[in-house]
Amino acid sequence: MRMVDLIEKKRDGYALTKEEIQFIIEGYTKGDIPDYQMSAFAMAVFFRGMTEEETATLTMAMVHSGDVIDLSNIDGIKVDKHSTGGVGDTTTLVLGPLVASVGVPVAKMSGRGLGHTGGTIDKLESVPGFHVEIDNDEFIRLVNQNKIAVIGQTGNLTPADKKLYALRDVTATVNSIPLIASSIMSKKIAAGADAIVLDVKTGAGAFMKDLEGAKQLATAMVEIGKRVGRKTMAVISDMSQPLGFAIGNALEVKEAIDTLKGEGPKDLEELCLTLGSHMVYLAEKAASLEEARAMLEQAMKDGSALETFKTFLSAQGGDASVVDDPSKLPQAKYQFELEAKEDGYVSEIVADEIGTAAMLLGAGRATKESTIDLAVGLVLRKKIGDQVKKGDSLVTIHSNTENIEEVKQKLYENIKISAAPVQAPTLIYDKIS
Amino acid sequence: MRMVDLIEKKRDGYALTKEEIQFIIEGYTKGDIPDYQMSAFAMAVFFRGMTEEETATLTMAMVHSGDVIDLSNIDGIKVDKHSTGGVGDTTTLVLGPLVASVGVPVAKMSGRGLGHTGGTIDKLESVPGFHVEIDNDEFIRLVNQNKIAVIGQTGNLTPADKKLYALRDVTATVNSIPLIASSIMSKKIAAGADAIVLDVKTGAGAFMKDLEGAKQLATAMVEIGKRVGRKTMAVISDMSQPLGFAIGNALEVKEAIDTLKGEGPKDLEELCLTLGSHMVYLAEKAASLEEARAMLEQAMKDGSALETFKTFLSAQGGDASVVDDPSKLPQAKYQFELEAKEDGYVSEIVADEIGTAAMLLGAGRATKESTIDLAVGLVLRKKIGDQVKKGDSLVTIHSNTENIEEVKQKLYENIKISAAPVQAPTLIYDKIS
Repeated sequence: MRMVDLIEKKRDGYALTKEEIQFIIEGYTKGDIPDYQMSAFAMAVFFRGMTEEETATLTMAMVHSGDVIDLSNIDGIKVDKHSTGGVGDTTTLVLGPLVASVGVPVAKMSGRGLGHTGGTIDKLESVPGFHVEIDNDEFIRLVNQNKIAVIGQTGNLTPADKKLYALRDVTATVNSIPLIASSIMSKKIAAGADAIVLDVKTGAGAFMKDLEGAKQLATAMVEIGKRVGRKTMAVISDMSQPLGFAIGNALEVKEAIDTLKGEGPKDLEELCLTLGSHMVYLAEKAASLEEARAMLEQAMKDGSALETFKTFLSAQGGDASVVDDPSKLPQAKYQFELEAKEDGYVSEIVADEIGTAAMLLGAGRATKESTIDLAVGLVLRKKIGDQVKKGDSLVTIHSNTENIEEVKQKLYENIKISAAPVQAPTLIYDKIS
Repeated sequence: MRMVDLIEKKRDGYALTKEEIQFIIEGYTKGDIPDYQMSAFAMAVFFRGMTEEETATLTMAMVHSGDVIDLSNIDGIKVDKHSTGGVGDTTTLVLGPLVASVGVPVAKMSGRGLGHTGGTIDKLESVPGFHVEIDNDEFIRLVNQNKIAVIGQTGNLTPADKKLYALRDVTATVNSIPLIASSIMSKKIAAGADAIVLDVKTGAGAFMKDLEGAKQLATAMVEIGKRVGRKTMAVISDMSQPLGFAIGNALEVKEAIDTLKGEGPKDLEELCLTLGSHMVYLAEKAASLEEARAMLEQAMKDGSALETFKTFLSAQGGDASVVDDPSKLPQAKYQFELEAKEDGYVSEIVADEIGTAAMLLGAGRATKESTIDLAVGLVLRKKIGDQVKKGDSLVTIHSNTENIEEVKQKLYENIKISAAPVQAPTLIYDKIS
């Protein structure tokens, strides 16, 4: 088999066989197939697509390119949640303790990564003492005991995907549904998931700007799940504006605590209950989605969700008293209010630009070398559809510097106010399973 | 400017600016742009194409990536001929002396390369003593004196094209009209041509298997010529069967001698007169194509074409007596006849497979390291449309080994005989200017 012939086959619109896809991924992982052939192949896939069968085969070839985490010593069905990424997305912090509190095992492998704010691990490290340096045995023991634990990236997971993603990033071949879908699904499967709930975001702050693309991506991933024996469903949710109010690390932890108490932003709560219901249902802890949702609402009401969060934090060295006294979380030196310059209705909050404003404050990493300031960030005071009066605060800026002119300007440019009333955007557009 | 953005721009179907194309070619030549980005770009061009303006800009960017040969010290308009390559194509050997004999300066830079037979230089080296190791001054002096000289590849011509072609070859991006057209034209222009006559082959033995593709390629190259101030025209000619009879190095030199005397295969003679007329006309040595053709026919008839060939061979150390006594050319040890197994009409002579049979005998290079046997090859005794009787010779096989079973089998498989009469294929399909 020669790579050049396989590139040509894909270029000419034919589907590759299982053996051919495995040859490509194995060869690329080992370095036998050079980057310049792989990037030409990726571009051919961009134009020609892949069948559902090819995409599933590609996914499993990437899974088997490296280590596969064995979670079989954890009792129950391991359901993982994945979000395609957005701004101020606190769902992971809420969902973990929430579904664990009703008995769903949450064995979460998380990362740091680049972005507007830190990754899940960065956020959790806002809690004094909390750490993810636990070994695999301890991880499994903790999940069995508390139903929830978080560990850092461990082992050599999906090296083919890592290598291919880095290549796609510099060759304008990121934006291909089968390549995105197989990349996401391979990581979840290699991390040991039995079932997967996907939160596919759409809108200005999302990778998939339009609803049609989000649906296609969701469908492709659900189809992979079906073909490789992992129960998978997807929710298409709004990311035209940031989710919830908080964008920042400690600020999102506080927001997660509020939400676990039933006192969080309504959009964040609703999305967590929706995603959580599906997780509970796929984990077979409830006979219906309605029953699952009732269980989660009860856990928020009776404090058991919050209690699970405390147990989880303590078990990994964290000071659980932050849950009752969030002022123990890192606090920024200054708080500034961004005042509305006119009366009207909030018509637009361009999510990715708001995220960039938070990064400018220091909440996220622009490059791998950047240091995160866990205390800083933004808390939205208004969301799309809200009425505002001149002088009302639109955003509270949590900053460790007084020099925030650039941030303020970016916020003013990207929070638009119209004279006429505006409808709040739909939160959940669709579900695909 | 970032290459990834330019790949994306082309991927999404936009035309690149002159500055952008120059950035790509300069960066790639210097090594600032890596192969993996260039191959993704080439694949995007494969799918999206290039405008005529982009293609012309790409051509000149490749011309200026290296040395440009200065032929201004040669009197007259330098017309170069280029063939897109076929099997048994002896036109270059005939056309050089033929048009030189009527005063058109032929300053030919030639190569060896891979293929069914050797390149022009390999073929000419069948003439004892002939060599191309002359310096530039001597080359120019010889062209001014004799109107014809041949030199090997000199200087660092179109390094961008060399590098890009090698990359395209292993990334399934060869088959793109703008990339092929700019590659060919950049080499001709860098070699100093004022005007260019193109012989674009079509059919089984050609790079462009179908007529439509050949026309597109011809049109793209003529359009480049127009845009960069080089008078250019193209002939679309048949390569469904080999041109002429001979496929082999010394065998083709003998065939060229026959043709210069007006005693060669009719298809080869006709194509040479057609291409040659256009060369003479573009060189402004005749006021019309008819006049140009009459001059060439006269040169064949009165012996001046043959005389020019002798002068040319002698001037570069060759034994010109081979022209009067071709038995002084390298001779193969054995000659075998391939006998027809049935009565009928030749319906097919699959050119590329016949070429491969010649290469199996040793007439061409399979890899750069292969050694050519100048004596061996094939001489067709029948062409498409010819009637044959069982036992007639279809091909004379010139071989230095008696072990030719594989060659014979390949020939039998690829020379088809039908019971019903067959029309000879059209030789010249179209002209584009």
